[in-house]
Amino acid sequence: MNDYSSKLLESAVSELSRLPGIGKKTALRLALYILKEDTVFADNLGNSIIKMRSEIKFCQKCNNISDSALCEICSNPKRDENTICIVEDIRDVLAIEKTSQFNGLYHVLGGIINPIEGIGPNDINIAHLVKRINSELINEIILALPATVEGDTTNYYIYKLVSPFDIKVTSIARGVAIGDELEYTDEVTLGRSIINRLPFNEST
Amino acid sequence: MNDYSSKLLESAVSELSRLPGIGKKTALRLALYILKEDTVFADNLGNSIIKMRSEIKFCQKCNNISDSALCEICSNPKRDENTICIVEDIRDVLAIEKTSQFNGLYHVLGGIINPIEGIGPNDINIAHLVKRINSELINEIILALPATVEGDTTNYYIYKLVSPFDIKVTSIARGVAIGDELEYTDEVTLGRSIINRLPFNEST
Repeated sequence: MNDYSSKLLESAVSELSRLPGIGKKTALRLALYILKEDTVFADNLGNSIIKMRSEIKFCQKCNNISDSALCEICSNPKRDENTICIVEDIRDVLAIEKTSQFNGLYHVLGGIINPIEGIGPNDINIAHLVKRINSELINEIILALPATVEGDTTNYYIYKLVSPFDIKVTSIARGVAIGDELEYTDEVTLGRSIINRLPFNEST
Repeated sequence: MNDYSSKLLESAVSELSRLPGIGKKTALRLALYILKEDTVFADNLGNSIIKMRSEIKFCQKCNNISDSALCEICSNPKRDENTICIVEDIRDVLAIEKTSQFNGLYHVLGGIINPIEGIGPNDINIAHLVKRINSELINEIILALPATVEGDTTNYYIYKLVSPFDIKVTSIARGVAIGDELEYTDEVTLGRSIINRLPFNEST
């Protein structure tokens, strides 16, 4: 006999355990939970996964996840088309959107330059950025990539790429997080926050 | 716009986050992972969940999860039909099967008596146990329920139920786990392990 006395259960556990962070034990717990719920729950869960994967599109403009050719951000006439924020992946778009502090458009690279893992500029969505620079009226490009060696490499690559054009290139501010104690902040962040100190006013 | 710029993604995240132990952030991580994999992966995952829930059966004899009317354990002629091990749910069957130390059949209660949560003897699979006692040739019933007040209550209820019949009722041994240090074993377990001490021989 197989481990689970049911090939149907075994197959579901095996598929669930292929998801990241889900081992065989968790997969079994999830499968038994699904079995205890009514069939509608399993149908909704299964179909939403299948439908999402088969029908989802990537925005032709910014490469964000989308239900149509242009994502809801790019097709929103209220957004500022002249400012583009460059991010690594869609999770960063969600994080920035949650702040409600950015009203421009995005450009989702889908990765960052990482020579060790063999990811070069051609493996991420950079060529399309050049097309956007040529065809759209962009005043400012905000770099919002991770503060890692790879992020800095990608930042520099894009900065060089953009420099021939009359476009302002900025980077999101790095510093001590609001609410964080200075003594628990890492030295690099604390050091940078001193170098990049700002004039004190009521809004900071 | 909704949180995720895609209703398809939002729907999949919402369904995934209904699973136990999976919050919105984990659900999003899983959904983005599914999007990065090819469509075959999403199809297999989705369909295995739907198929499992709609086609799975419960063994007519022992209530174990099964692909057919009788589970693979009950339909295996090599198993000892005269010994029945009573467990709370299918995970206990899997745990005992893994030890390869039990060759009898099971009886899955699907719960234990818990007056506080309003679960009585009629809410779990006990009536069918009486039918089995009357129709099958059972020599021994092994109680393998949790060592909790509820487990003990259920044990006692089954013991009383079985006592009119000529059937040996045993309980799995409780004691210090193999490899555990005595000083870290809880007092109740250590106390019971002294009361239920066994003659020393090579096999223990």
